[in-house]
Amino acid sequence: MPDSLLVVSAHAGDFVWRAGGAIALTTSRGGRATVVCLTYGERGESARAWREGHTLDEVKAIRRDEAEKAARELGAHIEFLDAGDYPLRPSDEITDRLVRAYRETRPTVVVTHPPHDPYNADHPAAARMALEARILAQAAGYPAPGDPLGAPPVFFFEPHQPEQSGFVPQVLLDITPVFETKTKAMHALPAQQHMWDYYTDLATRRGVQLRRNAGPNLGFPTDTRAEAYMRYYPQVATELA
Amino acid sequence: MPDSLLVVSAHAGDFVWRAGGAIALTTSRGGRATVVCLTYGERGESARAWREGHTLDEVKAIRRDEAEKAARELGAHIEFLDAGDYPLRPSDEITDRLVRAYRETRPTVVVTHPPHDPYNADHPAAARMALEARILAQAAGYPAPGDPLGAPPVFFFEPHQPEQSGFVPQVLLDITPVFETKTKAMHALPAQQHMWDYYTDLATRRGVQLRRNAGPNLGFPTDTRAEAYMRYYPQVATELA
Amino acid sequence: MPDSLLVVSAHAGDFVWRAGGAIALTTSRGGRATVVCLTYGERGESARAWREGHTLDEVKAIRRDEAEKAARELGAHIEFLDAGDYPLRPSDEITDRLVRAYRETRPTVVVTHPPHDPYNADHPAAARMALEARILAQAAGYPAPGDPLGAPPVFFFEPHQPEQSGFVPQVLLDITPVFETKTKAMHALPAQQHMWDYYTDLATRRGVQLRRNAGPNLGFPTDTRAEAYMRYYPQVATELA
Amino acid sequence: MPDSLLVVSAHAGDFVWRAGGAIALTTSRGGRATVVCLTYGERGESARAWREGHTLDEVKAIRRDEAEKAARELGAHIEFLDAGDYPLRPSDEITDRLVRAYRETRPTVVVTHPPHDPYNADHPAAARMALEARILAQAAGYPAPGDPLGAPPVFFFEPHQPEQSGFVPQVLLDITPVFETKTKAMHALPAQQHMWDYYTDLATRRGVQLRRNAGPNLGFPTDTRAEAYMRYYPQVATELA
Amino acid sequence: MPDSLLVVSAHAGDFVWRAGGAIALTTSRGGRATVVCLTYGERGESARAWREGHTLDEVKAIRRDEAEKAARELGAHIEFLDAGDYPLRPSDEITDRLVRAYRETRPTVVVTHPPHDPYNADHPAAARMALEARILAQAAGYPAPGDPLGAPPVFFFEPHQPEQSGFVPQVLLDITPVFETKTKAMHALPAQQHMWDYYTDLATRRGVQLRRNAGPNLGFPTDTRAEAYMRYYPQVATELA
Amino acid sequence: MPDSLLVVSAHAGDFVWRAGGAIALTTSRGGRATVVCLTYGERGESARAWREGHTLDEVKAIRRDEAEKAARELGAHIEFLDAGDYPLRPSDEITDRLVRAYRETRPTVVVTHPPHDPYNADHPAAARMALEARILAQAAGYPAPGDPLGAPPVFFFEPHQPEQSGFVPQVLLDITPVFETKTKAMHALPAQQHMWDYYTDLATRRGVQLRRNAGPNLGFPTDTRAEAYMRYYPQVATELA
Repeated sequence: MPDSLLVVSAHAGDFVWRAGGAIALTTSRGGRATVVCLTYGERGESARAWREGHTLDEVKAIRRDEAEKAARELGAHIEFLDAGDYPLRPSDEITDRLVRAYRETRPTVVVTHPPHDPYNADHPAAARMALEARILAQAAGYPAPGDPLGAPPVFFFEPHQPEQSGFVPQVLLDITPVFETKTKAMHALPAQQHMWDYYTDLATRRGVQLRRNAGPNLGFPTDTRAEAYMRYYPQVATELA
Repeated sequence: MPDSLLVVSAHAGDFVWRAGGAIALTTSRGGRATVVCLTYGERGESARAWREGHTLDEVKAIRRDEAEKAARELGAHIEFLDAGDYPLRPSDEITDRLVRAYRETRPTVVVTHPPHDPYNADHPAAARMALEARILAQAAGYPAPGDPLGAPPVFFFEPHQPEQSGFVPQVLLDITPVFETKTKAMHALPAQQHMWDYYTDLATRRGVQLRRNAGPNLGFPTDTRAEAYMRYYPQVATELA
Repeated sequence: MPDSLLVVSAHAGDFVWRAGGAIALTTSRGGRATVVCLTYGERGESARAWREGHTLDEVKAIRRDEAEKAARELGAHIEFLDAGDYPLRPSDEITDRLVRAYRETRPTVVVTHPPHDPYNADHPAAARMALEARILAQAAGYPAPGDPLGAPPVFFFEPHQPEQSGFVPQVLLDITPVFETKTKAMHALPAQQHMWDYYTDLATRRGVQLRRNAGPNLGFPTDTRAEAYMRYYPQVATELA
Repeated sequence: MPDSLLVVSAHAGDFVWRAGGAIALTTSRGGRATVVCLTYGERGESARAWREGHTLDEVKAIRRDEAEKAARELGAHIEFLDAGDYPLRPSDEITDRLVRAYRETRPTVVVTHPPHDPYNADHPAAARMALEARILAQAAGYPAPGDPLGAPPVFFFEPHQPEQSGFVPQVLLDITPVFETKTKAMHALPAQQHMWDYYTDLATRRGVQLRRNAGPNLGFPTDTRAEAYMRYYPQVATELA
Repeated sequence: MPDSLLVVSAHAGDFVWRAGGAIALTTSRGGRATVVCLTYGERGESARAWREGHTLDEVKAIRRDEAEKAARELGAHIEFLDAGDYPLRPSDEITDRLVRAYRETRPTVVVTHPPHDPYNADHPAAARMALEARILAQAAGYPAPGDPLGAPPVFFFEPHQPEQSGFVPQVLLDITPVFETKTKAMHALPAQQHMWDYYTDLATRRGVQLRRNAGPNLGFPTDTRAEAYMRYYPQVATELA
Repeated sequence: MPDSLLVVSAHAGDFVWRAGGAIALTTSRGGRATVVCLTYGERGESARAWREGHTLDEVKAIRRDEAEKAARELGAHIEFLDAGDYPLRPSDEITDRLVRAYRETRPTVVVTHPPHDPYNADHPAAARMALEARILAQAAGYPAPGDPLGAPPVFFFEPHQPEQSGFVPQVLLDITPVFETKTKAMHALPAQQHMWDYYTDLATRRGVQLRRNAGPNLGFPTDTRAEAYMRYYPQVATELA
């Protein structure tokens, strides 16, 4: 069974900075990756566009265009729910659309925001809906097309202020083989150039930590790049490693 | 590189009840497993032998014999440091012997007690020494034979009162293929027959949880048996799963 | 004053598996027990009924019938709010009905779900409403019949995946005298036969822990059965014990 | 079986300020109370005596005298181990003396310091020894006179800076009936007069909280006095209350 | 730039008991202080008025009048949103009014309730809105008058049951110079006379702790009064102190 | 009163990487800074020197020389206790020397390692001694020259793997004015050139976070550099900021 990765992203750019490596790894190995963007980040994460005088619809179009380009670089399918940001309000309708996305894509892995972020209220709102929809999609009695879901593992990607958000890396994912691809995807988001460096430095830092924890496993080169994740559920394993 | 598993156990029986499955999995697949028992559990975990009127030396001999039989069933090498239990006191000498065990066995995986247990003071003492020795073994300047160690991952096995010890399963290890072997090893410890049922039931319960978390991964049968572990360091991964 | 126990249960079966012993203890000693089921668990916890092809109304009727039988076995009064499950959405209307239940039953003890459960979103939703209604019922100005409530202690019963839900047993309740009654109540829920064994084993396991913590108190027999609870508020005591 | 309360106190005054109520409750009801003072608090908690120019032996004698008077007021037996304070160093010898105290007094309840206190290193050291000795006293093989102990519950009394020490009241103990006795015991410690008011105010504050949490239990008067405790092990109960 | 303090208070009295000192310090030094009361506390915190038989509108008027007097004593501007208490329900409309308050007052410091309180559901609701509005006010695209906000620090004042609410003092604020003013403001709330003593005692207790932690800083007199606060974001500093 | 900063460092380099900015800020403003190095880091943090074939004494001399140069750059006095590293064992003798250092330097601020670090056992050992000695130095009865100390605030500097060590930045200290000085001090440690970049990047990252949290405080330039600290005790303040 090929991998099916489902990424639930509050705003148009989140999936690129924080899970671009995981997405590219999946697609580069023949798996499918689906990104569901709940909003375009039109109000809360588009300061430059507003300063340039664009209207709300223009801002949305700009962000959508960028996110589609980034998704294309990563080889991912992307879908926009246009739920409205700042604030993003959980609703039964959005949650239902996520349930349907779960039942359609039948993810083997789910990636979303961590449930706590003192700097951003939309991110936890997105996480709550992503987590609840996953549970609803498993229920035989939930009225949505498709069979009840299994229980795919959930990973939280790294928030922008990790320590203040209670984020402690539990998985250090080697993204070295696809870091060039992730870089291209980041460059598809020109309005946030300061983020390019920031997330490149972060990948380096997480790479250093990966090598520090890789122990006797000598295969990781000096310039290893990594992304950090937390698990929401215990890992199922057939060996300790 | 074949696996090399190092288990640091405070008393003679601990490694059987709590990590017997992981040990048997390793050896059944051609890896090496080494158990270092810091004590025989002669004072603190041999109530029956004391009630039967044995001397201290006899109690030690009984426990040693049992532990050797259990290790044999599991295919593991076993070593006894005879450091004295109840209380087990950390010392530079025991720690040094553990450093040497690390440098000799060059473990790819380390398993020991979790560092907190309100029902037992020897278990955390063993964990502290196991963790410190692992760090010392990595130091170029530490005066023990052998090359400095890499940084093998550390797993804590499940304590007898998990919730009160802050133990939350992070890895559910499928031990179904070797559960018969673990059972034989448990039977090598006749003085604690009530534990046979207890740890069989626990393996069933953890197996139920494994299946609940295995999601779309349909390979696990109804009678899956599992052991639970916590990680002390972040997992290094080349894919999310 | 006889005891008055109020149990707030998200779905039709929850109160049986997790608090059946506490309910039976109360009623067996002449106290009153009232169970408020917010939903029938019709969508989320009735997989078998859906597989058998029942309609929504039929599923509700089946679950209601079972829950009434179980309540009867336990000697409890039961009330259904039919608030709709998967998702159960907190609302002022349901909360108000709970306020009225508090003011009518004037509970001396409240039992409900713990406020965190990564496997189920309805359980925390029920807990939130149960906790909020208890506070509202204490307010002189809240417009519901009856006098303002005192502040009854709140206990959380054990969730299905306790460790992942942050559940640490703080009270181990001896339910040995009523375990037969609890068993009959469980048998009133035939669609979940695998749960019978599961919660019987759990009662045994919690009983072992009870005896381990009962210390010099030698009154507890080998086959002690127990239920585990957490407290939400500090215990008020006239002696340390 | 009458109650047997064992209090392990790092310094000569600790048991009075923080557990005087629990001690007086026990003895007023016909139980026995034994206080083991590991040190006199001669270096760390006798600033006035040092300022007055006393020698070490004089300071010890002063503190011993005061503590004996306070114990007498409370009806407790008191024993001094003279282990040396600031720093109090855990040792096998002191621990062994505590094991013997456990086996002799056969406590039904144990009270000591909480295990964390950023303002005092002796308090956690005393707690560690008290907790370890309790475990050793349960071991059949531990070489001390008397039968192996059961597992008495342990309560931590309130430290001087509770919030910074991770102290959250779990039990609010009504000490109103013996508050006059506790006051007399406090007055036996004249060097710390500022503490009289401090711990009287604290008893009032904890009493207010007790009444706030006592709910429909209307027996507590306006001037209720209380002491706060934490539990180290789960409560064993035959009813929820 | 003079200080601008914004206090978001769930009910009419909260800001007086818990932040009266901080407010008076600000205004006594020439800064501005604005209190936004989301409700009058008409249902949940006006037991006496209800017992006296007042109507809802009368209760509101009484509480409003008292709060205005208290604010006057403190030199603060006060605004009432009349959002309805017990329960206070978060809404986009109230949140928007708070966004506007942020953009108008441009606070250099924000003070509100801590986000967890097991004794009160309105307080966390107020905190959530205060925190979210602060984030929204920073967004260029949020449609409210005024420039996007900077990111002022947020302090949580002390709840009525601090330990049970997870409140650990991180900042001890010396309010000695304005304690007389705070007392006058408390006296403007005659319906809660028992609170006068309670919060005077608390100010003394926090003052004792302030002096204990003030170290070599000898400027604090014996009768120092203090208020305790937690920080939600890291402190920005130009020196360690 | 000029500032007196006391830094307790387990190994020769720790104070440079992690607190160099705080030290330089202190001395650049006319305060005194004293660094107490418990060990040279001769065994555990001198891998290059060992690979080059140096003897133990040579390694110590190399590290001492480097640390003295770095201290000179920072304007700090430095003292070496040569207590032996890997493992650094707490002892009454070392602790006593720290007590004397406290009483001599009479610090207004103390900086040391955080008390938990899963990658290094010497760091927590150093922190424990630094914290205990500070308490002992306050005791009138502790037999060391000098007057009893006040209670200076304690800050923990950032460990090498912050998230895994439970390190959450609570204070972001602007070190921009002295970053050049810190850089020179880092260059005095040539054996760890990879650390130069690492800690320069970290200073940038913490600077970005400082600006993000500085809110309406516009004085911080784009290239702000910062060090992160945690507090061990509550902050004493005369204003909220």
